[in-house]
Amino acid sequence: MRVLSGIQPSGRPHLGNYFSMMKRMIEYQKTDELFCFIASYHSMTSVTDGNVLAQNILETAADFLALGLDPAKSVFWVQSDVPEVCELAWILSNHITVPQLELAHSYKDKIANGLSPGVGLFSYPVLMAADILLFGSEKVPVGKDQKQHLEITRDIAERFNKRCDAEVLVMPQPDILENVALVPGLDGRKMSKSYNNVIYPFESEKKLRKSIMAIQTDSTPVDEPKSYTDSVLFDIYSLFLDTPGKSALRDRFQTPGEGYGHIKQSLYEAVLDYFRIAREKRAAIIRRPDDIRDILRTGAERARSVARPLIEKVRQSSGLAY
Amino acid sequence: MRVLSGIQPSGRPHLGNYFSMMKRMIEYQKTDELFCFIASYHSMTSVTDGNVLAQNILETAADFLALGLDPAKSVFWVQSDVPEVCELAWILSNHITVPQLELAHSYKDKIANGLSPGVGLFSYPVLMAADILLFGSEKVPVGKDQKQHLEITRDIAERFNKRCDAEVLVMPQPDILENVALVPGLDGRKMSKSYNNVIYPFESEKKLRKSIMAIQTDSTPVDEPKSYTDSVLFDIYSLFLDTPGKSALRDRFQTPGEGYGHIKQSLYEAVLDYFRIAREKRAAIIRRPDDIRDILRTGAERARSVARPLIEKVRQSSGLAY
Repeated sequence: MRVLSGIQPSGRPHLGNYFSMMKRMIEYQKTDELFCFIASYHSMTSVTDGNVLAQNILETAADFLALGLDPAKSVFWVQSDVPEVCELAWILSNHITVPQLELAHSYKDKIANGLSPGVGLFSYPVLMAADILLFGSEKVPVGKDQKQHLEITRDIAERFNKRCDAEVLVMPQPDILENVALVPGLDGRKMSKSYNNVIYPFESEKKLRKSIMAIQTDSTPVDEPKSYTDSVLFDIYSLFLDTPGKSALRDRFQTPGEGYGHIKQSLYEAVLDYFRIAREKRAAIIRRPDDIRDILRTGAERARSVARPLIEKVRQSSGLAY
Repeated sequence: MRVLSGIQPSGRPHLGNYFSMMKRMIEYQKTDELFCFIASYHSMTSVTDGNVLAQNILETAADFLALGLDPAKSVFWVQSDVPEVCELAWILSNHITVPQLELAHSYKDKIANGLSPGVGLFSYPVLMAADILLFGSEKVPVGKDQKQHLEITRDIAERFNKRCDAEVLVMPQPDILENVALVPGLDGRKMSKSYNNVIYPFESEKKLRKSIMAIQTDSTPVDEPKSYTDSVLFDIYSLFLDTPGKSALRDRFQTPGEGYGHIKQSLYEAVLDYFRIAREKRAAIIRRPDDIRDILRTGAERARSVARPLIEKVRQSSGLAY
């Protein structure tokens, strides 16, 4: 099935981004036809500095390529290199009402969190619908917070098809990510750049170690057994462990004499080990930005070859092909 | 100066459209560089039948060409043939807030008049800003009802330029049409398709005569002088007269023996006479739709040659050129 997924190039990815999203996306390559884009237009709703955005696009591409996104296998492009999506968004915006958009939680939440109530942020779900529908996506992996947006997409598609009396748009199926890894940050809250509690796997070794050493732990003395329930250190470490590994970590927590510092050092080594190949690949890739650009442009061409016939059909049935 | 103007292809133009807008637009050709487009994207906010829209686009083009729009002198195109405007609209939508758009009278009025509160209708002023700014328009003729939209455009342009710290977008000047001809309809209310009180100058002679004969008049007998103040017939007829002509019409109203029927017959002849060349041209043009399409496509190419470098600058300064 054709799976579509996008990620905002809003900054460097942290472990939360990786385990809840990037890792899963890259895994789709094994079973499905992956369409993966860097959501440059979307990130304009929050990133206001052009230089930062341009840099973030390249960095995010490097991240994905380093983590295993295979541009030969998957279609990988920058959203704004296929601007047809904006045209589709305008057309679709006439198939949804303001009161419907006003119900969207995500907008309300973002405003409540202090983002400016931009029109772009408000119409975000319409652009998201265009992203999905332009490429005939059959399956869209979304977290629970994006479930409503996918319902809006399906709603728009249904109304559009009904209006044209034809199956112009493919009805996408949600692939709700129910058991998404909950990645706690250094302080135990959800890992999030805005909480300043993140671990960046592509950080320099020194900084990576420093952030891991900053994981909050309780004040249990070294020579006493430590609790692994409600331990942020245990939870973060567990992301890198299989079942026997977790069991061994539990034992280690309960063994007097094992200090948190030792365990953090092991976690640091485990992270480095887990990301070793990706870190090496990334360091090599980012030194050749023109290669990244070439990959993205080729991806955009492939994406466009799918988008073009679709937008033509949409224009035809909307009356724009006079 | 570069003057930009657009018209929605929402149906056949009536005398109200002609005198308040089309005539003035065509007159700009004498003094300015006219960029004139058929607002196909905008009309999607109200026209929902694709076949009707496609037909309306061609008909509206025929109207303009017949009325004297010269495609060799002016840039004349269909909005949706330069889809870059949708991309610019998305980018600009991040430079204006929802509360600002909520203040727009036009949206509120349209909803009050029973139009569906579509997201397209709501974001109309953003697309209008993109229309204006994409072509570096210096002067934009607007009626009083559109004044607020132009202020929104200027506001967006100012904020965008400030954000980029560069004069990327040309600040358009409004050209407020203060003394727009008020064209009354058959019943004395404003001439409007929705009031069903219109006169179509490109109508068949029979239907044209019938609509003119339906102009409401009072019951003053033929052999008494008639009042020309508050007379819809007098007001409509005046649109076709110069000062001496109006004076003669006043005399005619006050001369006993002159019936309303006679005056209406004269008006019918005056309308036919006024639009004779345009009617002939239109009848010829509409028989060759492929010629209309060629003209519009050539116009779109010219419009695009202005739009392309602008959107590239906008993309560059927004961070989309990574």
